[in-house]
Amino acid sequence: VGTRSWWGWGDEEAHLGAEERDGLAALLAERFPGHALSEVRPVDPVAVAPPPALEVPDGLDVATSVDAADRARHARGNAFVDVVRAVEGSLGRWPEAVLRPADADEVERVLDWAAGAGVAVVPYGGGSSVVGGVTPDPDGPPVVSLDLERLAGVLEVDEVSRHARVAAGTYGPAVNEGLAPHGLTFRHFPQSWEFSTLGGWVVTRAGGHFATGPTHVDDLVAAVSAVTPSGRWESRRLPGSGAGPSPDRLLLGSEGTLGIVTDAWVRVQERPRFRGTATVSFPDLPTGLRGLRALAQSGLEPANARLLDPTEAALNGAGDGTAAVLALGFESADHALGPWLDRALELCRDHAGSVTAGPRLTEGDRTGTAEGGAAAWRASFLRAPYLRDALVLLGMVVETFETAITWDRVDGFVADVVAATTAAATEALGSCAVSVRVTHAYPDGCAPYVTVIAPGRPGERVAQWEAVKAAASEAILAGGGTITHHHAVGRTHVPWYERQVPAPFRAALGAAKAVLDPAGVCNPGVLGLGAAGGAP
Amino acid sequence: VGTRSWWGWGDEEAHLGAEERDGLAALLAERFPGHALSEVRPVDPVAVAPPPALEVPDGLDVATSVDAADRARHARGNAFVDVVRAVEGSLGRWPEAVLRPADADEVERVLDWAAGAGVAVVPYGGGSSVVGGVTPDPDGPPVVSLDLERLAGVLEVDEVSRHARVAAGTYGPAVNEGLAPHGLTFRHFPQSWEFSTLGGWVVTRAGGHFATGPTHVDDLVAAVSAVTPSGRWESRRLPGSGAGPSPDRLLLGSEGTLGIVTDAWVRVQERPRFRGTATVSFPDLPTGLRGLRALAQSGLEPANARLLDPTEAALNGAGDGTAAVLALGFESADHALGPWLDRALELCRDHAGSVTAGPRLTEGDRTGTAEGGAAAWRASFLRAPYLRDALVLLGMVVETFETAITWDRVDGFVADVVAATTAAATEALGSCAVSVRVTHAYPDGCAPYVTVIAPGRPGERVAQWEAVKAAASEAILAGGGTITHHHAVGRTHVPWYERQVPAPFRAALGAAKAVLDPAGVCNPGVLGLGAAGGAP
Repeated sequence: VGTRSWWGWGDEEAHLGAEERDGLAALLAERFPGHALSEVRPVDPVAVAPPPALEVPDGLDVATSVDAADRARHARGNAFVDVVRAVEGSLGRWPEAVLRPADADEVERVLDWAAGAGVAVVPYGGGSSVVGGVTPDPDGPPVVSLDLERLAGVLEVDEVSRHARVAAGTYGPAVNEGLAPHGLTFRHFPQSWEFSTLGGWVVTRAGGHFATGPTHVDDLVAAVSAVTPSGRWESRRLPGSGAGPSPDRLLLGSEGTLGIVTDAWVRVQERPRFRGTATVSFPDLPTGLRGLRALAQSGLEPANARLLDPTEAALNGAGDGTAAVLALGFESADHALGPWLDRALELCRDHAGSVTAGPRLTEGDRTGTAEGGAAAWRASFLRAPYLRDALVLLGMVVETFETAITWDRVDGFVADVVAATTAAATEALGSCAVSVRVTHAYPDGCAPYVTVIAPGRPGERVAQWEAVKAAASEAILAGGGTITHHHAVGRTHVPWYERQVPAPFRAALGAAKAVLDPAGVCNPGVLGLGAAGGAP
Repeated sequence: VGTRSWWGWGDEEAHLGAEERDGLAALLAERFPGHALSEVRPVDPVAVAPPPALEVPDGLDVATSVDAADRARHARGNAFVDVVRAVEGSLGRWPEAVLRPADADEVERVLDWAAGAGVAVVPYGGGSSVVGGVTPDPDGPPVVSLDLERLAGVLEVDEVSRHARVAAGTYGPAVNEGLAPHGLTFRHFPQSWEFSTLGGWVVTRAGGHFATGPTHVDDLVAAVSAVTPSGRWESRRLPGSGAGPSPDRLLLGSEGTLGIVTDAWVRVQERPRFRGTATVSFPDLPTGLRGLRALAQSGLEPANARLLDPTEAALNGAGDGTAAVLALGFESADHALGPWLDRALELCRDHAGSVTAGPRLTEGDRTGTAEGGAAAWRASFLRAPYLRDALVLLGMVVETFETAITWDRVDGFVADVVAATTAAATEALGSCAVSVRVTHAYPDGCAPYVTVIAPGRPGERVAQWEAVKAAASEAILAGGGTITHHHAVGRTHVPWYERQVPAPFRAALGAAKAVLDPAGVCNPGVLGLGAAGGAP
């Protein structure tokens, strides 16, 4: 177990070492000549911590911490601006304390106390939000952070139905460790997997790494238990139901504003045994998108089908920067995948794709090597946030944002969003690198994911980032996309979220908030829901 | 185009002829000796129609009918009790008029007028509800039926994204007629398909005939437009989104209580070309359920996998009544299905299944015969409601109900529900026939569907039905199932629905109702939502 970084991603021990950092600096010097690469060092949180403005009563009898680094870590998520502010020691509003309830009864006691004391409660899973979802409202009442890490573990397993009840504060690796003795696994791997929790996934409608099929956690949830200020919420564990609007779907995406999810029954799977993989090269991104669409509409349902534009492909060592690259993978616990992979590659070739690696069919239990390629990809995938932090320390502005759009509009939409982002970043920062990958593909559309890297000006990076983020978000809204496919709304996306959803739905959600949380205790301001259920 | 029956299912021309009816009577005489089979004849609605208690103002300028048979047809859905009451001329509350708006503006005018005039509006698609979803509240204010049949047609088609915008009042066949010129089809076939509408499917979370995968219409909806008393509701057409709780999922299952759905973007498909089918026999239902579970957990995703218990199998001409029978089918527009069907049959054999017909692989475009078996099955499937009506006329009590349950509990659950239903029907009616099929299978559970047929006593059939329905519903709730997998809640299921869902969710839904429909105009009483959003 590592030492959780108070200012950046994950464990301190896993941060980039000197050699990696120097290599990165050399790359940046080449790409952004003239940019000063002197590394920023994080401040000492003890030196900048404001004294707690609130005393949590002993009578509450819930584990409470007022340690400066603990409070600092819980003052922010893991957005670019969170890390910049943490490193620079300008964290804004701090939580007055970090509370760690041991069970749902303790969660209930905290909510009751908070309602009476005029305190806001910000639920905290792994703190991986990149949209301000765990950031205290700068203008609201005093805040306590409710860290759910003690609500942890796989609580029940139903091997027959392939269901597991998992406590909300269980981190990704612990979910699968709890399932492994049953031969089961939860096939839900968001990029934050190591440092995010089951409860966080549920309330943010997290997207997994699967490229097709049920990748949003929405489809993997069979029942949810929550504590709301107005009472306990427990839905039935069902494979399907048509009994009124789905209760679970109101909590999915509620981002802690309606209550605190304490555990959920989720759909798990047998560990995959058969795999089929290949890499396919396309002349350019639009051509690759046509191939990806053919795959997504084929009914073959590859587990992995990530398409990188030429720039991303080169950065990931998957090409020389002249072609778009598709990483394709199938997996099954039940059957060998030759016919699936064969047909998928036939579709790729029909759309001007060239197979550059594979096809490779493996059977995990026998060869022990099936995990090889997948494991390398996974390690690189999970390492990306550490790389982002190193870029922050080297003075860069870094933003990753994602959306979803139907296939009919994808080419023009991606071009427009990239153009608007590039123009805004160039204006604000002088130069930038913008690249695109497509992380998820559906029969009716896909989820483009954009990375922006630009050399920032010391002390101005937050404002520079804001200009880029606003331009990108405007372009997404104007083009018909969603402000978020899987990063959630938090505080950052509220202005665009409010324009995206139907006005009567906003009113209905506000009314639901007002009746479930009449004192406005639960994460006020997130989703644009304030104390009275309306705008904060 | 036929003549819509005012008292029973579908078109009068398609009702059972004398020969079919006599054959049915002979079967019943054998199964229920001593039961009087004198056929009931429906009353003349003109003779029993109460005069309209309300005058719809001309100034509303919306097509209005006060014709007796039209009002009578709109006074009920197609539940057993609806048909009994219609035939016996005891329809209860009649709508005072049937309004047929031509567009969303007219819908809005009707809601505005109704709010001011103290009138309840019951939206009416095809009237196929079997749970009182379109039945006026017997104790509430005057009611108008809002028949959406003029909001009809496929309005837009996006062939690239495979999306179609379909008006709410479009009947099943017209949906696919509108898509056919594009080579597309909406693969959603509830049993009511011929006489139910897109809008009705959306608001009731209808289940299609597909046995696995996205069979609920929930998963096939990309965006919804609605008129609420508090304003227009229009969601973005997106392949996926993580922006807050899904707006569409609040309308899905709302059963007309939150507003009137006017159209929806739905996910359509290329017409399937390849098919693979087989029939598999299992020693008994529990063994068949284990085979079905293996299929549902395999990732093979058959399009059809309906399991009939020995009684149902015999009734459907699919066996001699000594074995459970599984109808298995795959379909694809993209690829031949040999490997899929081979592996599926291997799994069936591993679970004591014997292949009794097929495997048969066909390619539709070439042979022209692929539709053969499917067409026969579909005709029989769509004909069942007519058969039910003939049983009603012959004095029987007939109920079909359905639920869903996880695999770990299915054997005991089905046994308990069947036992409770049989005991109640035997006590209330003297004798009965109870049979089970499994209509949908998921990786984590399945949807059992139960049919009860018993000889009723003239004039007492409604009370007899109520006793059976209550006992079955109690057993479902006690066993952990859902009160409905795809028949919706309406008025009939309210007592069990209210116990099934989390209390805070009920409060949230009531608050949403109150803010969207403050005058309580929209289908009051359905889902247990009254004028003030709470209990009616």
